[in-house]
Amino acid sequence: MHEKDLGVGVLLDHYGELLTPRQREVMELYFNEDMSLFEISEHIGVTRQGVHDIVKRSEQFLSDMDKKLGLVDRFQKVESAKHFIEKAVLSLEAEEKEKNEILELLRSALSLLKQGE
Amino acid sequence: MHEKDLGVGVLLDHYGELLTPRQREVMELYFNEDMSLFEISEHIGVTRQGVHDIVKRSEQFLSDMDKKLGLVDRFQKVESAKHFIEKAVLSLEAEEKEKNEILELLRSALSLLKQGE
Repeated sequence: MHEKDLGVGVLLDHYGELLTPRQREVMELYFNEDMSLFEISEHIGVTRQGVHDIVKRSEQFLSDMDKKLGLVDRFQKVESAKHFIEKAVLSLEAEEKEKNEILELLRSALSLLKQGE
Repeated sequence: MHEKDLGVGVLLDHYGELLTPRQREVMELYFNEDMSLFEISEHIGVTRQGVHDIVKRSEQFLSDMDKKLGLVDRFQKVESAKHFIEKAVLSLEAEEKEKNEILELLRSALSLLKQGE
């Protein structure tokens, strides 16, 4: 029994382009369409064992590619950085609004002081 | 005569890990150490034509990889974003300094007003 490793779906997103069309089709069906090895074997006309071999070989290839290029880790870092930047933008926008309120307070105070001169 | 394409050096930075050790050695010597085809052929004991073939084949491979994975373009976008963020950090630091000066002005004014009560 072959256990589906969900991390493979992420590898597939990054390195799927490097697989052969046949490997890619099998991997997409197995990991993204959630078909079973048996269903895929009926779908593409290859034995269940043949599909299993394609999956294992493709998994190994994707894993080797990631050891060499490290895109999964780099992508996660970019995602984290994007999240930080989005939070910073929201904070700056809130601060800008607050700054306008502060400016209003100071203008009111100045106006009162001018009336009291 | 083979023209050195300087863009290949960038491709080499991103995809060099995917070349065979021999291809990588030749490409590093040619593009990073700036050796001539002839010098490399003497260095590794392969004919000049053999070195030329390795360079052409490796260039094609690196270019194919970039068509599939697009890391050069992605890296340039990340570099531009880093540049923007660095500028934003400097601006915010300058603004923070200015804000402290504004706070000092307001505290002085408040102190004067209290003395004049």
